[in-house]
Amino acid sequence: MELLQRVIKEQGIVIDNEVLKVDGFLNHRIDPKLMYKIGEEFAQRFKGLNITKILTLESSGIAPAVFTGFTLGVPVVFAKKNISRNINSETYSSCVHSFTKNKKYIIRVSKEYIDKADNLLIIDDFLANGQAVKGMIELATMAGANVVGIGIVIEKGFQNGGTLLREMGIRVESLAIIEEMSKEKISFRKEEEKKR
Amino acid sequence: MELLQRVIKEQGIVIDNEVLKVDGFLNHRIDPKLMYKIGEEFAQRFKGLNITKILTLESSGIAPAVFTGFTLGVPVVFAKKNISRNINSETYSSCVHSFTKNKKYIIRVSKEYIDKADNLLIIDDFLANGQAVKGMIELATMAGANVVGIGIVIEKGFQNGGTLLREMGIRVESLAIIEEMSKEKISFRKEEEKKR
Repeated sequence: MELLQRVIKEQGIVIDNEVLKVDGFLNHRIDPKLMYKIGEEFAQRFKGLNITKILTLESSGIAPAVFTGFTLGVPVVFAKKNISRNINSETYSSCVHSFTKNKKYIIRVSKEYIDKADNLLIIDDFLANGQAVKGMIELATMAGANVVGIGIVIEKGFQNGGTLLREMGIRVESLAIIEEMSKEKISFRKEEEKKR
Repeated sequence: MELLQRVIKEQGIVIDNEVLKVDGFLNHRIDPKLMYKIGEEFAQRFKGLNITKILTLESSGIAPAVFTGFTLGVPVVFAKKNISRNINSETYSSCVHSFTKNKKYIIRVSKEYIDKADNLLIIDDFLANGQAVKGMIELATMAGANVVGIGIVIEKGFQNGGTLLREMGIRVESLAIIEEMSKEKISFRKEEEKKR
């Protein structure tokens, strides 16, 4: 997605070899017009797959997910990272190891909101080692739901999450795949190479 | 907002005198079409106020905030409840006491993303004791930003947050104000009474 790649080049800040800060439009300040276009792009790429629901993870997955849900006309369920008083005790849960933050956390989704009738599209802001998405796939599997695809805003192509998920036979659509990044330059994988 | 009141009556579950569970369309599963209409309603109520940015709090404030930002054509900044590696260390922070969860937590916003040129609209999903909103007002004040109003999806009119904020002289627009609730019945404050 050319627009997204341009915004990443203009506003993304490479902190080190692994961390790209995109707080300016995705993870802290959100650009709603860009999110709308991202939602349209996901809806276009996954059209005709009879998606019944979108599954994402709080917090940064929510904005791209709700605009995708808006365009596709389906509800969005966001998995929670903390137990709150208001969440139903009947939940599916999965343990996720975040390499970026070097910690483990539990993600949960209420059993009420995904079930075996669902064709889920999983949306997330970043794909690095793929652990968060793998956790969401586990939640879907526990619910007996079908995962029709994974939509990622920014994939770090130099980390192994994309390979991991694609080798599981799941369709992964990343709107921007970073091939290499340094403080000087961010380069993206080209569209035709993505189809490999 | 009649549509919202209808959805609350249909889908809201009163847990006890203080807790209303609206996980079905707002806090866990999100109805994007309803969020779009909520965004339009906030945009309508706060039009002509030269809003430059929306401030909300992760996670449940994000969906109504991004659709409001979309309609108003302004960015959304969401305050964070946890420190992450990717947040700039230069942040404004405020301590919020959640009566619902009976705990204190820190909310933070990067100094990069709100400043004295901003006319902020604060959006949140719930207003009960007003502590989260008060925390966001504190962040805005630290930044020297002007708060032009508060937009709340559901206000618990029987708790004191609404009174607290209105007595501070801030315009509060709540799309549904619950006057009373019990397992049998949810009743809303009428529009004309809201104007008092």
